[in-house]
Amino acid sequence: MPNVLPALDAAGKIREGRLTSVELVRACLNRIKETDGQIKAWVQLDTEYALARAAEMDDIRRAGRPLGALHGIPVGLKDIVDTRDFLTERGTAIFTGRQPTEDAAIVERLKDQGAIILGKTVTTELAFVQAAETRNPHNIAYSPGGSSSGSAAAVAAFQVPLAIGTQTNGSVIRPASFCGTYGFKPTRGMISRRGILQTSESLDQVGVFGRTLDDIALLSDVIKGYDPADKLSYARPRPLMLEGCRSDPPVAPEFVWLELPFNIRLTPAAREGLEEIMALLGDRVEKVSVPASFDGFINAQRVIHEYEICLHLKETFSGYWEKISPALQQIIEHGRTISAAQYEDAVQFMVSANEYFDIFFHDYDAVLTASAPGEAPEFADGTGDPVFSTIWTLCGLPSVSLPLLVGETGLPIGVQLVARTEQDDRLLRTANWMQNKLKEQQASG
Amino acid sequence: MPNVLPALDAAGKIREGRLTSVELVRACLNRIKETDGQIKAWVQLDTEYALARAAEMDDIRRAGRPLGALHGIPVGLKDIVDTRDFLTERGTAIFTGRQPTEDAAIVERLKDQGAIILGKTVTTELAFVQAAETRNPHNIAYSPGGSSSGSAAAVAAFQVPLAIGTQTNGSVIRPASFCGTYGFKPTRGMISRRGILQTSESLDQVGVFGRTLDDIALLSDVIKGYDPADKLSYARPRPLMLEGCRSDPPVAPEFVWLELPFNIRLTPAAREGLEEIMALLGDRVEKVSVPASFDGFINAQRVIHEYEICLHLKETFSGYWEKISPALQQIIEHGRTISAAQYEDAVQFMVSANEYFDIFFHDYDAVLTASAPGEAPEFADGTGDPVFSTIWTLCGLPSVSLPLLVGETGLPIGVQLVARTEQDDRLLRTANWMQNKLKEQQASG
Repeated sequence: MPNVLPALDAAGKIREGRLTSVELVRACLNRIKETDGQIKAWVQLDTEYALARAAEMDDIRRAGRPLGALHGIPVGLKDIVDTRDFLTERGTAIFTGRQPTEDAAIVERLKDQGAIILGKTVTTELAFVQAAETRNPHNIAYSPGGSSSGSAAAVAAFQVPLAIGTQTNGSVIRPASFCGTYGFKPTRGMISRRGILQTSESLDQVGVFGRTLDDIALLSDVIKGYDPADKLSYARPRPLMLEGCRSDPPVAPEFVWLELPFNIRLTPAAREGLEEIMALLGDRVEKVSVPASFDGFINAQRVIHEYEICLHLKETFSGYWEKISPALQQIIEHGRTISAAQYEDAVQFMVSANEYFDIFFHDYDAVLTASAPGEAPEFADGTGDPVFSTIWTLCGLPSVSLPLLVGETGLPIGVQLVARTEQDDRLLRTANWMQNKLKEQQASG
Repeated sequence: MPNVLPALDAAGKIREGRLTSVELVRACLNRIKETDGQIKAWVQLDTEYALARAAEMDDIRRAGRPLGALHGIPVGLKDIVDTRDFLTERGTAIFTGRQPTEDAAIVERLKDQGAIILGKTVTTELAFVQAAETRNPHNIAYSPGGSSSGSAAAVAAFQVPLAIGTQTNGSVIRPASFCGTYGFKPTRGMISRRGILQTSESLDQVGVFGRTLDDIALLSDVIKGYDPADKLSYARPRPLMLEGCRSDPPVAPEFVWLELPFNIRLTPAAREGLEEIMALLGDRVEKVSVPASFDGFINAQRVIHEYEICLHLKETFSGYWEKISPALQQIIEHGRTISAAQYEDAVQFMVSANEYFDIFFHDYDAVLTASAPGEAPEFADGTGDPVFSTIWTLCGLPSVSLPLLVGETGLPIGVQLVARTEQDDRLLRTANWMQNKLKEQQASG
């Protein structure tokens, strides 16, 4: 039987001596053993390591020594996050057997708070388009989304309560949507990327997966922090995520629905589900049309992403061309044709867009939008369309996916909320409010 | 008029909008201007920098953005702690004009929590024996102690609410005792030393100064954390200092007074003050004689300290011999005669001593002892005797100095409590309990 406890509850039980970390880790390992033959969320596990670390955390508790916020809680790490205790192979044969000598900054923070690194989860090739072997745990004929495929699938399948992903376009929000977990990509600069594969210095962001809002708040509290080794990390205080998530808004939040050019890609079920939510929220939602310049977002993200990955991974691409998938080769070939001037224009677009949203969010608590156009695509059709994340990733805005809708074939669809930069706590508060409101309305309706 | 608010209260007022960081920083700068001509606690200040940073923290508060635990609170840093924004000259002409390109790990953590680096405080030469110019703020004819001379004096003189020091023998506890502040040296491995002058990898430890127990707890909560760049930093959860400090012990704590060989060095006022405290604590204190092997502590600390400083600073010592004080030259010359075998013996002694205290503290909450033999020596006589810290530094145990006694000439004397490794929260809880108990007893007596 899987252990379905959210991490926050499990941590509370461990603290009180009503659950041991060894029991929890064993339950996760058993669940993986039973289910991962089909789901294929994990690329590396080390039973002995995880149980030894869990026993150490249990010993600390029994001795009355200090407990961390994630004391004894197992966490999965996308396999582009460097780990001293596991290989980090980045979803490509190019890096088979690659053993980092140092932990990524977020791994240091996880260890500092007593978390157990359970293992490494499957990533798409170099965290980009080429799907890996992971299947959607709700129906293995479908994709889990990407690039943080294994992290989303593992959390959804109750293999682990928490997992880490990254997002350069839609790589956290989209798999969260497809797998029916909560997914959270905090504000750009909130979490250090030191020790994580760099595919785009401007766009790469760390995100988290959990099965409750509290859990994604808790995990991001643990891994957030200033680190000058990451150029985009900022030297200012960070929001208290869990405290924010659990607080009540002083007044009912204001949502905005944007008439985005790509809303036409929504499937009927997604569109209907979102309309139903808007109906339940009533006058709390304003519908707003957007300037034509919104068409530029998608292009700017693509230009920056492709230009920077060709720059950062230049030697990898030229040295191991034959080991790269045709899909990625095609992107690289396109990326190499982007001129410095085109790239500079895209960066300028991003800067203006940031300024636009700084003012835009004076009037709203959150943008309400889809996490993806609809349900997960079939496995053979790739990891899905990231377009509903592109604007928010480009602008580094905090965004969260809530598993609120169900699609035509019974697969989950996420609802996305996006807030002003550095207002991650308020975003989670708004999400929590909305979730409770919808429950109430549905119960009384 | 100086701002005498403890940091915790000032942070509360800033949070509530009843005080601005700019007001607080201005009050500190004015106080320094008025008093530092005599005290000489600061080696570098940058009024413009500090006020700009304070204004930034005030802007963040006004905009409703996230606040840190030390939001807007000025902190002084011993001038062996590397700072990108200030020179770091280490108390010697050898490093005049030295500008680090990176902040020390603890400076990153301070910035992450909204603290203002107010400036750099005077250290003795290379944080060792040769006194610098700083005077005891209670009477400038006397020493403030060393090596964290400026940090202790600045906090005592209400120039800044908090400051950072380091201790390799008695360099936090002793100046805290002489200057009448609280001083706290947490467990070895609790706080990263990355970016701090290394004088002894085995013994160097970071410590803090404040004017209340809560404040030293708060500051150590902010700067603690796992960092693999420091070889002695441990990858386990750390105690919650402030929460521990403010909690009530489940039962009255048990203290132990050790009949240490160097207790004969106590001045009559120190001895009487400690006896009075023990009388007030009554049966809560057990007096215990110590094995003859305790004589070995002082020698082991000296061997490790001198051997390692000669190793770490080999090139500095050989390249700049003429710029080194005669007092330090003499130590270096002795250090160079220590054989690897003698050093290994001392390290072995340290390891056995750690094992001894792990068992010893099963029976007691804290060792009660002096922080120094008595009042500060006169300025010309050096920075005082560190012997009451040596054992606890060698063993990496958490220790705190409380300004509870007064000496023959009216200068403060500290009382030291020491606890088991990693029980820093319990140590602060015990210290708080003892302080309240003594107040009650004195009020009723």
